[in-house]
Parts: sequence; C-alpha cells; structure tokens
Amino acid sequence: MAVSRDLLETFPNEFPQREYKIEIVQPEFTSLCPKTGQPDFGVVKITYTPKGKCVELKSLKYYLQAYRTEGIFYEHVTNTILDDLAAVVSPQWMRVEISFNARGGITETVTAMYNAAM
Amino acid sequence: MAVSRDLLETFPNEFPQREYKIEIVQPEFTSLCPKTGQPDFGVVKITYTPKGKCVELKSLKYYLQAYRTEGIFYEHVTNTILDDLAAVVSPQWMRVEISFNARGGITETVTAMYNAAM
Amino acid sequence: MAVSRDLLETFPNEFPQREYKIEIVQPEFTSLCPKTGQPDFGVVKITYTPKGKCVELKSLKYYLQAYRTEGIFYEHVTNTILDDLAAVVSPQWMRVEISFNARGGITETVTAMYNAAM
Amino acid sequence: MAVSRDLLETFPNEFPQREYKIEIVQPEFTSLCPKTGQPDFGVVKITYTPKGKCVELKSLKYYLQAYRTEGIFYEHVTNTILDDLAAVVSPQWMRVEISFNARGGITETVTAMYNAAM
Amino acid sequence: MAVSRDLLETFPNEFPQREYKIEIVQPEFTSLCPKTGQPDFGVVKITYTPKGKCVELKSLKYYLQAYRTEGIFYEHVTNTILDDLAAVVSPQWMRVEISFNARGGITETVTAMYNAAM
Amino acid sequence: MAVSRDLLETFPNEFPQREYKIEIVQPEFTSLCPKTGQPDFGVVKITYTPKGKCVELKSLKYYLQAYRTEGIFYEHVTNTILDDLAAVVSPQWMRVEISFNARGGITETVTAMYNAAM
Amino acid sequence: MAVSRDLLETFPNEFPQREYKIEIVQPEFTSLCPKTGQPDFGVVKITYTPKGKCVELKSLKYYLQAYRTEGIFYEHVTNTILDDLAAVVSPQWMRVEISFNARGGITETVTAMYNAAM
Amino acid sequence: MAVSRDLLETFPNEFPQREYKIEIVQPEFTSLCPKTGQPDFGVVKITYTPKGKCVELKSLKYYLQAYRTEGIFYEHVTNTILDDLAAVVSPQWMRVEISFNARGGITETVTAMYNAAM
Amino acid sequence: MAVSRDLLETFPNEFPQREYKIEIVQPEFTSLCPKTGQPDFGVVKITYTPKGKCVELKSLKYYLQAYRTEGIFYEHVTNTILDDLAAVVSPQWMRVEISFNARGGITETVTAMYNAAM
Amino acid sequence: MAVSRDLLETFPNEFPQREYKIEIVQPEFTSLCPKTGQPDFGVVKITYTPKGKCVELKSLKYYLQAYRTEGIFYEHVTNTILDDLAAVVSPQWMRVEISFNARGGITETVTAMYNAAM
Repeated sequence: MAVSRDLLETFPNEFPQREYKIEIVQPEFTSLCPKTGQPDFGVVKITYTPKGKCVELKSLKYYLQAYRTEGIFYEHVTNTILDDLAAVVSPQWMRVEISFNARGGITETVTAMYNAAM
Repeated sequence: MAVSRDLLETFPNEFPQREYKIEIVQPEFTSLCPKTGQPDFGVVKITYTPKGKCVELKSLKYYLQAYRTEGIFYEHVTNTILDDLAAVVSPQWMRVEISFNARGGITETVTAMYNAAM
Repeated sequence: MAVSRDLLETFPNEFPQREYKIEIVQPEFTSLCPKTGQPDFGVVKITYTPKGKCVELKSLKYYLQAYRTEGIFYEHVTNTILDDLAAVVSPQWMRVEISFNARGGITETVTAMYNAAM
Repeated sequence: MAVSRDLLETFPNEFPQREYKIEIVQPEFTSLCPKTGQPDFGVVKITYTPKGKCVELKSLKYYLQAYRTEGIFYEHVTNTILDDLAAVVSPQWMRVEISFNARGGITETVTAMYNAAM
Repeated sequence: MAVSRDLLETFPNEFPQREYKIEIVQPEFTSLCPKTGQPDFGVVKITYTPKGKCVELKSLKYYLQAYRTEGIFYEHVTNTILDDLAAVVSPQWMRVEISFNARGGITETVTAMYNAAM
Repeated sequence: MAVSRDLLETFPNEFPQREYKIEIVQPEFTSLCPKTGQPDFGVVKITYTPKGKCVELKSLKYYLQAYRTEGIFYEHVTNTILDDLAAVVSPQWMRVEISFNARGGITETVTAMYNAAM
Repeated sequence: MAVSRDLLETFPNEFPQREYKIEIVQPEFTSLCPKTGQPDFGVVKITYTPKGKCVELKSLKYYLQAYRTEGIFYEHVTNTILDDLAAVVSPQWMRVEISFNARGGITETVTAMYNAAM
Repeated sequence: MAVSRDLLETFPNEFPQREYKIEIVQPEFTSLCPKTGQPDFGVVKITYTPKGKCVELKSLKYYLQAYRTEGIFYEHVTNTILDDLAAVVSPQWMRVEISFNARGGITETVTAMYNAAM
Repeated sequence: MAVSRDLLETFPNEFPQREYKIEIVQPEFTSLCPKTGQPDFGVVKITYTPKGKCVELKSLKYYLQAYRTEGIFYEHVTNTILDDLAAVVSPQWMRVEISFNARGGITETVTAMYNAAM
Repeated sequence: MAVSRDLLETFPNEFPQREYKIEIVQPEFTSLCPKTGQPDFGVVKITYTPKGKCVELKSLKYYLQAYRTEGIFYEHVTNTILDDLAAVVSPQWMRVEISFNARGGITETVTAMYNAAM
C-alpha cells in the first residue's frame, strides 16, 4: 500500500467552540533507510488542536503503516507526515515528533511544527 | 446507572479568598467504544481552582463509574466530563485530561480546558 | 497533642539580604477522615523564601504529627497548614502541597499559595 | 582541613565571548549538625555561567570535603558555598542547591541564587 | 584520525520554509583528560533548527569519534564542537550539551548555545 | 455476555514435541465486588506449557471481558479462570495470577497453580 | 480500638483442594515507638496458602489500623501479626514482612515465617 | 528476502573448552499477522552456550529482518527461530524468547528451549 | 570516637523459638581510603536470623559512624563489621554487604557471610 | 599501552579463612571492532571469591583501559579477561560478564565462568 494522504480520514469535531488538545502516540513506526534499505524504527507523537475535523485513528494507523516499505530520510518523513495531516485535518496548530532508534550509536528526534511555537 | 451531571455533588469551599489548586486522578476509568462495543480504559486527571464550591470525591467516583456501560468517543467523553464538572462546580478554571490505553498500538490523550491556557 | 500553630518555632534567617528558596518534604503525613474516622495518608511539600525567619524542622515535625488524631478534609488541612506557617514565618512567599494516597481508587493533590503564582 | 575559600582554584575561561552554562553535581556531601554533632548528607548542585574564570574541579572537591568536620546548618552551608564560589569565580550568575537526606522523616532542599531568577 | 571540522558533511534541508527542530544524542562520547591522559566519557546532545543544511549523521559519528585520542578539557570540547557544527551547518540556532561521567565523585555538564537562549 | 468457558477457543499446538512456555498478560481486567457492586480492577497473568492445544487470544479477550458485569471475589475469580482454562486447554501445567488494584489502601494478588510448583 | 486478634474475620476457602497463594500488601502501616512515642511507618506484606479459611480484607484493615496508637518494637509487631493471623487463619504456611521507613538514616525490614522456608 | 536458515552464518568458538553463555537481544523484531496482515512487533532474546560455533551477529540481523514480510503466528515464529538457530549453531543448549507488543490489550511472550530447563 | 565492637548493644530476642530474618540498610556509610585519605561512601546491608539477641539500632548507628575517621580498605571494613556484629549478636547466620560508590569509574561491592551460603 | 596480564596487581586477602564475594563493575569499557575498527562500548562485571589474593582496583582500571586501542571480538575479550584475572588472582571461582551496547540494533552479553555454575 503506497503512502498517500488519501489514506487519512476525519470525523467532525463536536466541540469546535472549545480549545482542546489531542495527543496521539504510535510507538511502532517503521520505514526503510533510502540509502541502505535497512529498516528504521521510531516513536511518532502527533499533537494538535482541532478546528472542524479530527483525524480518525484507524485510518491514521493504516497511513503510518504504509511507510513500512518506504525508503525515506528522518527529516523528510517527519515533515511529510505533518504536511499530510495538516492538509487533511486543517487544525488550529499541529506538531509531529518522531524519535528514531539508535543507528551507529546515535539517536535522532525530529520535531516539526505547523502554526505552533517550538 | 445512566451518566448524568446530577450525580455530581459539591461542598462549600472554606477558603474562597485564596487561589489554590485541586488535582484529582482516577486511574480506573472505563467506557465502551461506540462502534465496536469493546471496552476502553484510561486515566482521568481533573485540575481546577475552586470559587464557591468543590466537587465531592465520592459523588465524582460514582459519576465516572457511570461511563462503564456508556458507548462514547475519546474526544466526546473528555469534553462532556469538563462540561458537567464546570457546570456543577463553577470553578475559576478547570482542565480535564484523559489518557486512553493503546488500541491498535496507538495511544491517545485528550485535554480540554475551561478558562485555562493550554 | 492538639494541632496548634504555637507548636511551630522559628530561627533567624542569617541571609535576609539574599533571595533563596527552602523546600521541605514530609512523606509521612497522616490525619483522619472527618466523616468516617478512617486514616488518610499523604506527602506534604512546603516551599518558601524566608524574610526574617525560617521554620525550625523539629518543631515542624511535631506540628505535622499533631494531625495524626485530627479529623479534617483534604482542602481544609492544606490551607490550614499554609495559614499557620505563613503567620509564624512571615515569608516572602510560600506554597503548601499535599498529595493524598488513593481512596476509592481516586488520588487528590491540593496546592495552596501565599503571595505566589500557581 | 578547615573550610576556606582559599581552597578554591580557577582556570581562565577560554570562551568568554559566549554565554554557556556549567552544571556540577557532587552527590557525596557530608557535614555535621551543629546541635547534635550527628553527620548530615546531601547532594550539592552548582550551576553558573562563567565570565573570565571557571572553578577547577579538583580544588572544588577538596573545598567541599572540608565540610566533613564542620558543624553547620542547612541554610547556612548552602549560602556560604554560594558566597565563596561567587567571590572566587565572579560568574555572570550562579545557583547552589543542596538536597539533604531525611532526618526525622523530613527532607530539606535549599537553593540560593546569585544574580539569578528563581 | 585528527579532530577536524572537515570531517563534517551536510545535506540540503528540503523544508527550509518551515521551523523545525533536530535533536541528536550520542551516548558514547570519549576523549582524554589533557592533564592525566585518563579517558573521559560523556553523553553529547546536539539540538538545532536548520536553515539550508542538515548535518549528515555518519560524518557526525566519525567527527565525534576523532576525540577518542584527543586530550581536551570539558568546557573546551563542548564549545569546540558547537563552533565546528555551527560553522559547517549555519543553523538558525544550535545548542550542544555534554554530560560527563563522574570523576572524583563529581559530575559536570557543559551547555553551550549559538543564537539561543539558555 | 455471561461468563462461560464455552467462550474460550483453542488452536492446535504445532510443536507438541517441544517443552515451551507461553505467558499472557491482560492488564485491563475488571469485575464487580459481590458485596458492594463496586468495580474491581486487576492485571491477569496466565502462564502455561501447551500439550496438544493453545488458547486463542481473541477468544480469551472475550472470555475475560465477560467478567465486566460479574460480581465475584478475588480468590474465586482467579481459581475459576484457572479451572476454565485448564479444562479447555489441557496444558502440561498452568498458572494464573491476578494482581488487584488497592481497595481501602490494601492490594491483593492471588496465584493459583495447576500441575505446577509455587 | 485496642489491638486484638478478635478483630480478624475469615471466610471459607472455596478451593481447599488446590494449592494457591495469596499476597496482601498494606503500604500505610503506622505504629508508635515504645521508647519515644514517635510514629513509625512501614509497608506490611502478608503471603500465605490457605487451608480451610481466608482472611477477610476489611477486618484485616481494621486489625492493622489498631496499631496506630500502639507502642511496639519492629521485631515484636512483625511476629505478633504473624501469630495472630496464623492462629485465626490456620494456613498451610504464612509469611509476614514489614519494611519500616528510615529512622536515624537506617531502614529495617523484619520477615517472620510460619511453616515456611526463608 | 525470504526467511531461510541459509541466511545464518557462524564463526568458530575459540573457547570450546569453557562453559560460557551468550545472550543476544534484538528489540526491533517485526512480522505480520497471518490472519489480518497487520504488523506485529516484539523483542527477541536468544541465549545459548556454544560448542564449536557461534552465530555471526550481522547474519542474524538479516535472518531476523526477513520476517518483516512474513505472515506467521507467535508460537510458530518463536519455535522456528529456535529450530533454525539450533540446527545451524549446534549449541550445548539454547533458549529463544519473544515478547510481543499488546494487541487487543493483551501481551504474549513465548519461550522455547532446546536442551534446557525452563 | 574510635571504632570498637563495644559500641554495639543488644536487646533480648522475644521470639527465640521462631526462625525470622532481620534486614538493616544504612545508606550513609563513609570511611577513608587508607592510602590517599580521601573519603569513601557506601551502602551497608546487614541481614541475619537472631538467636538470643538482636542488635540495637541506635548503637549500630554510632558504631557505623565511627568509621567516618577510619582509614580502611573495602574488603577489610566489610569483614570487620561482620566479625564485630557476629561476636556481639551470636546470630544463627549473618551477611554483611557494602556497595561502595564509584572511584576511578569502578564500583565494588563486598559481601561476607557468617554461617550462610552465598 | 598494550593489553597484558602483567598490568594486573594483587594484594593479600586478609580474610582467607572466610568465604566472601567481591563484585566489581566498570561501566566505561571500550575496545575496537577487529573488522571495522569502529569503537565498541560495554559494561564489565567481575565477581569472585578470593583465596590468597585480591585484585588491586587501580591496576584493574589500567588493565581494562588497555583495550581502548585493541581490535577484539566480544566473545574473545570476555574470555581473555577471565583468563588473565583467574591466572593472576587464583580465586576460588570467578565470573566475567560484559554487556555490549547495541550495534545494528542488537545487544550482546557474554558471561564466562571459572570454577562456577552458570
């Protein structure tokens, strides 16, 4: 299944008049290194305040699983997930953070923001 | 026992002249998924500064237990508990946060605020 | 021994010209529930910046032990300890926080402030 | 060896044009209670931004060890260490925090600041 | 292999229009004490927001490994790594923090900032 | 859905010639107190070595969920689950342990064994 | 309420034909030092295999609370609780362990066994 | 790359005259559920005492990665890995344990032994 | 105060007919290195089954404090404490374990036994 | 400095008549991979019961540091350290365990025994 933002579904936010925060953690993210083809593993954390729509969790699960066969760099995948989610959900603000497991003894965490302070 | 804000009782705040904070944690929250009927589990954290009234803990326990047989979405239940508590307690500010256990490997935490910054 | 702020003793602050902070933790606080007579347990945390006086720790120990036979609500005991300490120590600011052990599966922490932000 | 700020040595800061922070932790601090002669134990944390000089760690070790035979109160020793270090190092700002082990079931942490916010 | 900023390579930032943050942790840093020749060990944490370039992780690994045979002080190595990385990457801001293992029972952490608040 | 061992399904053990161990943890067990009707919560741990059959996990989930509306004592529920599982799976040996959350400040863990040492 | 084994109640063991283990933890035990009158605090752990009877938890709670006003040594209280429980419950074997909080910087745990190896 | 024990390589044990133990942990194991096609995740732990040969770690990494596209049950994969490793390494004894992440709120660990007690 | 087993006091064991275990932990042990004079720090753990006598905790505290000014090796101090305690208490069996803090990056724990298996 | 058991020094065991245990942990072990030249890192744990001699800690530190420039496999280095120490110390029994940091996402621990059960 190819990665595509079309995999993401939403449902209407029933409390659009209130500022509230949704934090989603998926600790089983895996993609491939585009250079070596070796698998990468990471923990994805998505935080946002909805406007009219919330992301549907099952569709998010399938969207993130689609990276299992994708060769993509750490910085690229983090920013792409943010681009896709922000386009589909149109949140007030959103933040996507992925903490990748150590490779060569080095760990990297990438945090990208949409309409949000660091 | 049906969920109803009438289950919530209060007692007078004896220190209305002072700004203070009450934080309540209930780690045994359970409701049902409205789609599948499967049980959901979570940790409820309620924080507020009282004006004239404080929520009575035993009544809060029964109120939260009433969700045991209720089919309701994560975002909905968090905002409904905040609505009910804020209506009954009339606090200066209040925050309700529920961290739901993993389903499909994904964890979600919803945080709703009444008169409070994020 | 009845609870009384007369149990609290102080000693002169030798560094009145400097802003510094004292944090005291007593993890063995116990009082009684005024309704059921059952014992409550909690952790008391006191933080303040002294002006002319500091609280003497041994007298504080006896003062807190006096609640062992006292029937008193969570919110009341936290605010009363703050009232007593602030009256005796006259600090620049002070904060008293008590985290009570779970009762009926619910934990409550009360935090009261004197001349301090939350 | 008597406690004296003359035990403290410094070396020149090679990066005076940059704001940077040094944090030193010594978890084996011990002094004596001036009332009972009983030993006290604590963890010392020193944080500062250097101007022209940094404190030399070996000399700091000997300076702190000199308190082993010193009878001195919690508040006094924390402020004295700050006075001595600030006088010798002349930092932009400095903070000294000592967390003392429980006595009579009560723990105390004293934090003193020189040119720093709390 | 001598320490040199020429060991550091970069790749173009594909998301230059977005503010995002990269945090890199290398827990296997080792250098030598310039006085005694004894090995020092520490955890290096590098955080920055890229402008046009990101640091390539494999080259960073080799750059940090080059300190294995280098005699250098804590404060010096932290500031030198920041100087080298900032010169090569030209980030919006960057922070380098090294937490060195205990020597003589004392632990030191040095944090240096480039265009960043403490 | 009433509790019944008929809810449990099995599948053939493909490695009957080898001694191996299966450990299953379900941390979301909930039943009711038969005296007060109040909900109890616990962590179920099932360990066994299969002979001809293994328990199917989805059917085990439904079987354990059926206790949600059942009023039953700690000792009784632990032994009943062991009786039901041992009857359906016919293992070489089996152990069922349930750690119940605190009630009245007291925690109880019941461990029952079938053909196994303590 | 004076300490007395008459406070302990039992209920019939419904599974007398099976060897199983019950472990009870009460982390809020408090008694008094018989020399100084100062409160002691500890964690009580009771483990046993029942024969005909199990200890009823609510009565155990009241029995243990009765030590709140009792002046008694560590070794004495642990052995007395074992004597009382073993006399009332007549278990196959039983173990009582109490871990007392630090006094004078020293922690003591006493473990007494009835028909059990260490 | 299809799963095959031909992927596993060995190197000669240089200390065949001594009993020693090798424990290997791979926390990034992932396979597919044979029913749903959904990814499973787990931690693999392999322990053995070599006779003439040790397993080469890089080849083991590739062997375990080959399960990434394999649909296989928990019990089957654990026993198959043990079969393959024992056949290739011919150890004195060997144990393979895989702890799978929660699915439907339930965690399973399978432990298979070759010439070893449980 | 010089180290001497005469500092140790005992009180009669009121339960000589029962096998029970006493474990004492003192985490604030400090002595001096006999070569360098530098302070050493460690955690002392004493475990024993009494016959006719138990060690009195306050006297044990003073006995252990007497090492504060004593220059003595790790192995020597552990065995000496065991010799002194066993001579004074005449236990059924006893074990003394001291875990010393890291020196030169190396930690040592010495465990000595009297009438006990390792 | 080349690795050699001549670097190891001993001192006489003053308690040869008693069975006691010495456990030494060095968490800063580093050697080189003999294939790639890349540094490996690990935690060394040495446990033994002395007969006539104990290993001197400072000499052990230098002996272990000598591996810093040595290319050697995991299994080889663990067995070699055991060979060297057992030859020099002549203990009753000894065990050497090294836990190496993850490489390629895989962690290995090697444990070798001299006159000891696993």
